[in-house]
Order: sequence, then structure tokens, then C-alpha cells
Amino acid sequence: MSPTDYTFASDNVAGLHPQALALLSEANEGVVAAYGEDAATRNFEEALSSFFEMPVKAFLVFNGTAANALSLASLVKPYEAVACHRHAHADLDECNAPEFFTGGAKLIPIDGKNGKVGPKMLEAKLQERDDVHFPKIRALTLTLSSEVGTVYTLSELAELKEVCQKYRVRVHLDGARFFNALAALGGQPGDCIRASGADVLSLGLVKIGAALGEGVVFFDEPLSDGFAYRRKQAAQLSSKMRFISAPIPTLIKADIVDWARHANTMASSLGNGFRALGIEPVFPVEANAVFVRLKEDVAQRLRGEGWVFYDFVENTQRFVCHWGTTAQNIERLLSDVQRISASQ
Amino acid sequence: MSPTDYTFASDNVAGLHPQALALLSEANEGVVAAYGEDAATRNFEEALSSFFEMPVKAFLVFNGTAANALSLASLVKPYEAVACHRHAHADLDECNAPEFFTGGAKLIPIDGKNGKVGPKMLEAKLQERDDVHFPKIRALTLTLSSEVGTVYTLSELAELKEVCQKYRVRVHLDGARFFNALAALGGQPGDCIRASGADVLSLGLVKIGAALGEGVVFFDEPLSDGFAYRRKQAAQLSSKMRFISAPIPTLIKADIVDWARHANTMASSLGNGFRALGIEPVFPVEANAVFVRLKEDVAQRLRGEGWVFYDFVENTQRFVCHWGTTAQNIERLLSDVQRISASQ
Amino acid sequence: MSPTDYTFASDNVAGLHPQALALLSEANEGVVAAYGEDAATRNFEEALSSFFEMPVKAFLVFNGTAANALSLASLVKPYEAVACHRHAHADLDECNAPEFFTGGAKLIPIDGKNGKVGPKMLEAKLQERDDVHFPKIRALTLTLSSEVGTVYTLSELAELKEVCQKYRVRVHLDGARFFNALAALGGQPGDCIRASGADVLSLGLVKIGAALGEGVVFFDEPLSDGFAYRRKQAAQLSSKMRFISAPIPTLIKADIVDWARHANTMASSLGNGFRALGIEPVFPVEANAVFVRLKEDVAQRLRGEGWVFYDFVENTQRFVCHWGTTAQNIERLLSDVQRISASQ
Amino acid sequence: MSPTDYTFASDNVAGLHPQALALLSEANEGVVAAYGEDAATRNFEEALSSFFEMPVKAFLVFNGTAANALSLASLVKPYEAVACHRHAHADLDECNAPEFFTGGAKLIPIDGKNGKVGPKMLEAKLQERDDVHFPKIRALTLTLSSEVGTVYTLSELAELKEVCQKYRVRVHLDGARFFNALAALGGQPGDCIRASGADVLSLGLVKIGAALGEGVVFFDEPLSDGFAYRRKQAAQLSSKMRFISAPIPTLIKADIVDWARHANTMASSLGNGFRALGIEPVFPVEANAVFVRLKEDVAQRLRGEGWVFYDFVENTQRFVCHWGTTAQNIERLLSDVQRISASQ
Repeated sequence: MSPTDYTFASDNVAGLHPQALALLSEANEGVVAAYGEDAATRNFEEALSSFFEMPVKAFLVFNGTAANALSLASLVKPYEAVACHRHAHADLDECNAPEFFTGGAKLIPIDGKNGKVGPKMLEAKLQERDDVHFPKIRALTLTLSSEVGTVYTLSELAELKEVCQKYRVRVHLDGARFFNALAALGGQPGDCIRASGADVLSLGLVKIGAALGEGVVFFDEPLSDGFAYRRKQAAQLSSKMRFISAPIPTLIKADIVDWARHANTMASSLGNGFRALGIEPVFPVEANAVFVRLKEDVAQRLRGEGWVFYDFVENTQRFVCHWGTTAQNIERLLSDVQRISASQ
Repeated sequence: MSPTDYTFASDNVAGLHPQALALLSEANEGVVAAYGEDAATRNFEEALSSFFEMPVKAFLVFNGTAANALSLASLVKPYEAVACHRHAHADLDECNAPEFFTGGAKLIPIDGKNGKVGPKMLEAKLQERDDVHFPKIRALTLTLSSEVGTVYTLSELAELKEVCQKYRVRVHLDGARFFNALAALGGQPGDCIRASGADVLSLGLVKIGAALGEGVVFFDEPLSDGFAYRRKQAAQLSSKMRFISAPIPTLIKADIVDWARHANTMASSLGNGFRALGIEPVFPVEANAVFVRLKEDVAQRLRGEGWVFYDFVENTQRFVCHWGTTAQNIERLLSDVQRISASQ
Repeated sequence: MSPTDYTFASDNVAGLHPQALALLSEANEGVVAAYGEDAATRNFEEALSSFFEMPVKAFLVFNGTAANALSLASLVKPYEAVACHRHAHADLDECNAPEFFTGGAKLIPIDGKNGKVGPKMLEAKLQERDDVHFPKIRALTLTLSSEVGTVYTLSELAELKEVCQKYRVRVHLDGARFFNALAALGGQPGDCIRASGADVLSLGLVKIGAALGEGVVFFDEPLSDGFAYRRKQAAQLSSKMRFISAPIPTLIKADIVDWARHANTMASSLGNGFRALGIEPVFPVEANAVFVRLKEDVAQRLRGEGWVFYDFVENTQRFVCHWGTTAQNIERLLSDVQRISASQ
Repeated sequence: MSPTDYTFASDNVAGLHPQALALLSEANEGVVAAYGEDAATRNFEEALSSFFEMPVKAFLVFNGTAANALSLASLVKPYEAVACHRHAHADLDECNAPEFFTGGAKLIPIDGKNGKVGPKMLEAKLQERDDVHFPKIRALTLTLSSEVGTVYTLSELAELKEVCQKYRVRVHLDGARFFNALAALGGQPGDCIRASGADVLSLGLVKIGAALGEGVVFFDEPLSDGFAYRRKQAAQLSSKMRFISAPIPTLIKADIVDWARHANTMASSLGNGFRALGIEPVFPVEANAVFVRLKEDVAQRLRGEGWVFYDFVENTQRFVCHWGTTAQNIERLLSDVQRISASQ
């Protein structure tokens, strides 16, 4: 059996960035207050307010599923519904967590090109039903960057915001790869919040390599009422919170976005490399992932030689870059693809 | 304002034991499979089977509330009930998490001396109702070591087991401080499992300083069916699981129990020290915590000088020891207590 | 085996009052709109606004458990709690329905004489905890008339209201026997609503013999937002609603209260009869039920002769009167009690 | 404004059949045991065992949403899923009730002609995912007769059963219009149960005009364990159960099926009438409903003249017949359609 190479399997295969690990190790010193009453955790909210240049209420939870599910539970009632793209992680990869934590709310898949919700299709769905036998759609969740590696532009977000405000629909951003989206968008971190009218954001810190937990960031403060209790009930309050919070205040000023930019650059380079081999990326390469359609035998032989990568929506194969991805990694992958393709 | 000293506030105030941190740092190297498909995590279950000298199904979750709530959700239906001691953490300190994750099951408090469920009181409660308007009690949760620092003896566990078997009641152990209980009991780790007939155990790894997550250990394998899905839905599946699992296989062979023994010894010494000052511990000091009733002004002045400790059930003050507690810490606390008491 | 006489077992043993049945039969004629869009159902809300002399939002559900559980779900979040008397039906006789429909909220039993929540004990409980590990009490449910046949006076209600307002606690009335309470209180129906500051009422129509469903009546309109959807999701929206609603608009003007007055009078007469036999009612007889402590062999022989009555809280036996109870029923019961007692 | 004629709007617009009302009125006499301990209710289960010629466990609940949601909650865990036709009432018209009562299970829509799940499409979906991030499909719900008035043949049911058994998927029948399906299928009531391998059936008694509640019928007895408690918790246990159960034992022997046959005949006649006017029914008319695509102005003028009928899936208009539908009703409708169509 060939050795297994997870390099491009996911950004979840990378560890903590060494800087993050160093900060975490530092935070281990001494005894401090439990359950987030420590200094590092208190700094976390402040650091995020600075980052977004607006006041926020911020909480840490253990993973992205929790961040999404508890955010949505703050936006809808059990008898309401959440619209999402038909490829949304929340619907396809969280094993009913949103339904569970909301107490039964339905996810309503909406179509749209390149993994982005189409505003017209959203509006059509919002108009479809208006009776007590079907749940009212009261929230929209958008993934930034999207499940297929694309990034909503500010004007696309603004168009969706307009529909949402017309129908009194709240907006949640699933930012599992939020820093990759920011790196792609440029500008200020608050721009996409304002453009989308986001009420709450799942702030991805795990995939990017910064922390062992994720943020839930409320931009509409009253929505965060009771969230501390909700988090405790949901078994998402860490007794030793410093291990999640400690690295963030330092890193968020610049480093995390830099890591994201690196990962995006690597993906762009990988996308170009595929293209040079005649393998056109299926979706625009805008963040840290590349989706292609490999010939079946090429994919099989690559896997036989140890490469791990996942089959994804729309019959694609997904390759993901992260802080630890190197130009050498990319060269090696592309050279293997070229060799195998040539030998067919 | 005086500096704040959390030394005895809780075992949650301590960081990871340096050995655990070293192993975690080591585990950070390289890319590995996500979501627990890595080698460290695969070893975890095997390490626990060895530890208990019996086959187990073991899962990692993020915290103790999750371990308890998901264990109980595996034992009872939404329309059933769980018996527990009236001081049980699950009932008093988890903000409805058991009710939430079970889908509505009620916790039924039972009395009993020294924080331990009384078998006769349990049986009386089991006989009290037998109609469809009240939930049937189908599980018992026991805390090892208990909320007031005591440890069920094997014969006490056997007595409870007998009642449970008679009424078809499942047994869960809340082992937030399980290693402290093991250190107190001596013998083999499996002894208290067999004595209690435990179906599932919340294995405390956080408070003891070994890991950033907790174990859910099934001794009755069929009960674990579907638990991997339940954990995912509950937002308790870590994408970078190695950060939780990595230290355990190495440490569980000896170190963790040693740390527990140290903490228990410190508590015993603290208990004796209090007694020497005429302050009798309210409950037998059997694990890593000491409960006393300080005079109100003594408690207040201690706090004024920076000591942090919590008021607890039955009008007590709780002092907890952990792997990092030193003889010096204890001397200093006792000497402050003595000085303040003398000056009254 | 002796024939079984359910006369005093419960007010649930009686059928519909003949007037109610006649109105229901009348409502069966012809085809009408489904799901409560019929004329009878539309009249229902208006009839209640007239009855209470204030604007209300009113909904019909199938039974009292639904009325209570959905009312409470409108008042608290899954991570909050509901205070109730320790004898409350919602806690002791609804098999976790409140926990289920609220998504996990805990019921917190409060003590108090004669089945009534004591304001001081309520306040003490409200002050007991103020941390994220225990659910905040955000609602109080009061039973009118109480589980032991007593009725809160207006001044008792006002005292509880004061405590609730001080701590921002919402008020629900479990009015399973609301008309019996009204008959006991005299005055206007709205008096006890104003005195208690009730936000929502479970309006009992089944036990009194008026309908095959119960009302949920909101006095604070914004709380009723989304309730139509909540009811649908909870499987409490009748497709042929007219069968529940039809009798109410006609009967509520006078008849239902008259039936309640009759039942109360019968209970009063039964209580006096017991007293004359030296059997003192355990709780004041203020509504339609009498609670006594019969000698064990007397109770046993009564049951042997066919009488059905239930053992209840505080070691009592409960005898309930309803619209169909007659003076003859009472004479016969008392004469049997006397004969059996004499022969001991 | 024109008078409103609900004749063909739904089978929910009809009242109780006079025979059912007479039996209900009869059942009102005297005092009887509450909560289903009465004789009528005890007979109910026996009557169903006779009807199906096999032993069943049968329970009464208040409506079809409850019957479906509680049936599904008996078949799947919160982290599992239920497959259904993409037109299924459970998914489209129960406002998240299945998600709520199962604790979060997802409904997975499957395509298939004429409102019937296609076995190949079901199997493809069952093979699509096999990982912990997506819920396992563990139940299939089939509607008999379907949402578009068609009826699965025994061989279609057998084909679906084969797929379900291969993948360990349980089968639920949503029998909101089960008697209409039986009337269409002919043969014995148990035939379709055996053919489909049904584990549990929602037995529709309300739409057919027989009762004020619905049945939940278990064919696999162990699945019914605890259902009495589940029903109580779900607020679906009637205190005066006789009002639901009383008519059934008498009527089920012949009458209900006769009423269904009448409704089917009426629908068949209506379908033929439409066809004669050049309006082809969109789906085969096999039970008690006819679906056509009227020209927009014809539909509008019909509604303007008072007729009520609903727009339905696949751009159709639905006309439903019931026990009270007469040949005159049909003639009048068809004549109005003809007149209006001619005048276009």
C-alpha cells in the first residue's frame, strides 16, 4: 500500500500555525480563571471589535458546526426556516445539527451559479408559500468563501441584502474560511459585513490554523442576548477557554490574514498549473481551493500513488491549500498529474 | 484591589500538565487525516481498552457537559427520566444541557449522604410512579468522585447496581474527576465499572490536565450504535481531533493516575491542616477537594486578600487541588486562614 | 367484581354537557372552511375578548398539556427555566411535555401552602443563582384553581405579580379549571388576569364539559407572534376546527360559569358532608374538588364496593365534582363512607 | 361578494358522517374512565387487529400531523433521515413537525412519477452518502393514497420494500386517505401492509368523516414500546378519549370503506366529466381527488362565482370528493366549468 499524502485533502489536515502553537503554549502558564473569565478571553471580544472597526459581541465555541448551528438558533424559531445555497455545508455536511439546535427549523436549498445564492431564485422561494403549513423563511446563510472556493463580491452581497430586508430575513455568514474571503476581497474586514447586512458571523479560526475553536460574532447586539446561556446548554463553553482564545488577539492584527493570503496564492498557482495541463478549474479560483474534473483513471492512479483528495459536488475533485502548503507541494502534485495524464 | 489567586478555585484553573502540552505540540507536526481518522485518535480507543482491561467503544468530545449529555441521550428517550444525586452537576450546573440533548428527559434528584445517591431513596423513587403521566426513570447517573469530594466504595456501587438491575435502569458514570476516584479506590480501573454495572462513562481528561477534551466510553457496545453520528450532530466532532487525542495513549498508562494521586494527597493534607485549625471538613476528604464551613468574616477577609474559592452546596466553601498544587500553596493558604482566624 | 363508579374520579370522566353536544352536532352541518378558517372559529377570539373585556389573541389546541406546553414555549428559551408549585400538573403529570416543547427548559418546583406558590419562597429561588451554569427563571406558572382545589385570591396574585415584575419573570396561568376558579372568585373574569399580570392563559374547556379542546389566550399580544405556526408544528391545529370552537361563543356568555358554579357547590357540599363525618378536608374546599385522608381500610372497602378515586399529593384522596355531579351522588358516597367507617 | 362554496376544496371541509356523529353522541352518556381507559377505546385496538387480520398495536392521536410525526419519531433518531416523495405532505405541509418531533431528522425528497417514490431514485439516494457528516436515511414514508390522488399498486409497494430491506430502511405509510386507497386497491386491508412491509401506519379517520382523531398503527410490535409515553409527552393523549374512539369499532367493519368507495366514485365521475370537456386530469384519478390544469381565466371566474379549490403542485388545481359529495355537486361544478369555458 502506498503512503498517504493528505497535503491537499482539506485545510483541516494542517495543524496549528507554529505562531499559534507558541502562543497557546505560553497561555498554559499558571492558574487562571475558568470558563472564559480569564484575561485572554476577555481580550478576544475587544480584538474583534478593533478588527471589524465596529462594536461586536463575540463568543468562542469549539467548532464550525457549533458556530453555524448556534448562530442559526439565534435567528430562527423551531417553526421557521433558513435559506441556503444548495451546496451549503450547513445542509449537506453537518448531520442535522442546524435542525437539532434550532429545534426543528428546515433548511431550504436555493440554486445559484458558482456556489452562490442567486438573488432572484431566493426571492422566488420567499414568495412561494405564505401559509401556516409551511415554515416561513426567516434567515439566509451565506458561505464566505463558498463551498466551491468562490467569493461573493460586495455588490452581490448588497443585492442579497436588499432581498432579505424586503422580506424581513436575517443574514448569517458561514465564515469557515472567512479570512480567505477577506484576503480575496481586499479592503476592510467590515466591508462585507456592511454590504451583506450580516447579523451574525461564524468566524473560522480552526481551518486557518489559528486556534482550536471558532468565533460567533454578533453585529446586531440584541440578538446576542442569552447567547452565553445558549452556549453553555449546547456544551460549547470551554472550562479552560484560554486554550482557544489565547492566540487570537495577537494574531488577528495581521498574521491570520497573511496566512489566508498565502493559501489563496497557492490555490491560484495550483489552478493555473491545472489550466496549463489542460484541466480547466470548474469554478473560479478565488480563495484557497481548486475544483477540477479529472478523468476517472487519472484520479484513481493519483490516489493509488498516495494522494488524498475528495470528490465533491457537481462531479468535481477538490484540492485545498492552507498555511502550510508550499510551492514544492504544488509542483509535485502537478508533475504527478502530468505524468499520469501523459501515460494514459 | 488585591491580586487574585485562583490556586484552589477549581481544577479548571490549571493548564495542561507540561507532559500533555509537550505531546500536544509534538502532534502538531505535519498534515494528518481530519475528523479523527488520524493515527493518534485511532490509538485512543485501544489505549482505553487496555486501561480498563475490557473491550470498550470510546469517543472524544469537547467538554464534560457534552460527555454527560450525550451519554444520557444514549440511555434515555425524551419521555423518560434520569435519576441523579440532588447535588449532581448534570442537574445543577449544566444549564439544561441534559434536557436539551435528550430531547426533554427530566432529571430526578435523589437524596443521600455525602453526595452519594442512597440506594433506598433511589428505590423509593423508582416505585413512586407507574403511570403514563410521569416519565419512567430509565437511567441513573453517579458522579465519581462526587461533587463533594467523596468516592463511592465498590460495595456502595454494587448496592446501587442491584437496584438498577431490578428496575431495568441503565447506569452512567459522570467521571469528570474519574482519575481522582481511581486513585482513591486503588485496585484496577475496571473494578468500579464492574461493581456499578456502568453502561457508559464520561471520562474526565480536562480537569486532570491531560487533554483539551473528554472521553465517552461505552462498556455496553450496542449502546454506542450511531454515536458517531450523534456526536457530529451535537457539534462535538473535532476536525483536528489529534489535538484532543494525542496525549492520551502515552499518558494513560501511568501519568494521569499519578497526577490524580498527587492532587488527592494535596487535598488530604489540606483537609488535615484545616482540621488542625479546628475547622472540620464537612465531607470526608477522599479525592481532590476539601469542603469546609468558614466563619463568614474569615471567608470574606480571605477573599479580600486575593484568595478565590467558591461557595458550594450545603453552605460550604470548596477548595480544590490539582496536578499543579504544591505543599507551599497549602501552607500559605492555611497560614492565612490561621492568621485571619486568630485576629477575629 | 363490583361495578366501577367513576363519578368522583375526575372531571375528565364526564362527557360534554348536553348543551355543548347539541351545539357541536349543529356545527356538523354542511361544508365549511378547514383549519380554523370557518365562522365559528373566527368568533371564538372575539367571544373571549368580550368575556375578558380586553383585547386578546386566542387559539385553540387539543388538550391541556398542549395549552400549557405551548404557552410556556412562548415564554422561555430552551436554556431558561419555569418556576411552578411543587404540586404543579405541568411538572408532575405531563410526562416531560414542557421540557419537550420548550426545547429543554427546566421546571423549578417552589413550595407554598395549600398548593399555592409562596411569594417569599419564589423570591428566594430567584435570588439563588446568577451564573451561566444554571438556567435563569423567566416564567412562573400558576394553577387556577390549584391542583389541591384551592384558589389564589386577588391579593395573593398581586403579591406574586410584584415579585415577577421585579425579576422580569413572565406569568402563565394553567387554567385547566379556570372557570371553577372564576366561580369561586366572583367579580369579573378579567380581575385575576389584571391582578396576576398574566401574559398567557391555558383556558380549560374540556374538564368543564364545554368543548373537545382548550384555549391558549394571550393578554400580551406580541407574545402571540408566530403562535399559529408553532401550533401547526406542534400538531395542534385541527383540520376540522369547528368541532372544537363551535360551542364556545354561545356558552361562554353564561353557561360555562354556571356549570362551574354547580360543580363548586357540589364540592362544597361534599366537603361539609365529610366534615360532618369527622373527616376534615385537608385543603380549603374552594373549587370543585375535595381532598381528605381516609383511613386505609375505609379507602380500600370503598374501592372494593366500586368507587373510583385517586390517591394524590400529601397522602390525600381526591374527590372531584363536575357539571354532572348530583346531590344524590354525594349522598350516596357519604352514606357509604359513613356505613363503612361505622363498621370498622 | 359571491357566496363561498367549499364543496370540492378538501375532504377536511366535510363534517362527521351522520353515523359517526350519532355514535359519538351515544358515547357521551354517563361517566367513564379518562385517558383511554374506557371500553370504547379498549375496543379500538381489537377492532383494528380484526380489520387487518393480524395483531397490531394501535393508538389514537388528535390529527394527521401528529400521527405522521410521532410515527417517524418511532422510526428514526435525531441524527438520521427520512426519505419521502418530493410532494410529501410531511415535508411540504406540516411546518417542520417531523423535524420537531424526531428531534432534528431531515426529510429527503425523492422524485418519482404521479406522486409515487421511484424505487431506482430511492436507491440512488440511499447510495449517495456514507459518511458521518450526512444523516443516514433510516425510514421511508409513503402516502396512500398519494398527494396527487394516485395509489401505489401492490407490486410497486413490493419493489420499494425490496430496496428498503436491502438498506435497512423502515417503512411508514401516511394513510391520511388510507381508506380511499383501500377502496381503490380492493382485496384485503392487510395486502398493502404486507406488500410494503410497513412498520407503522398513520390511519386517517378525520378526512373520511369517521372520527375526530387519527390512528397510529404498529405492525412491528416492539417499535410501539414506550409509545404511550411518547404520545403523552407530545400532548396527544386525550383525557376524554371516548370522543375519538367511540365510532370506530362499529364503523370500520364496513361503513368507512363504503364512504371511501363513494368518494372515489364521485372523483372518478368528476374526472370523466372534466375529460369530456377536454380538460384531461393531470394524474390518474385513482382515489378521491382530481387534478387538472384550468386556463387561468377559467379558474379565476370559477372562484369569482364562489367555488373554492386549491392550486397544487405541478401547476395544478385540485378538486377533492368526500362522503358528502353528491352527483348534483359534480354536475353543477362541471356545468359551471363548461359555461365559463365556452364564454372565453
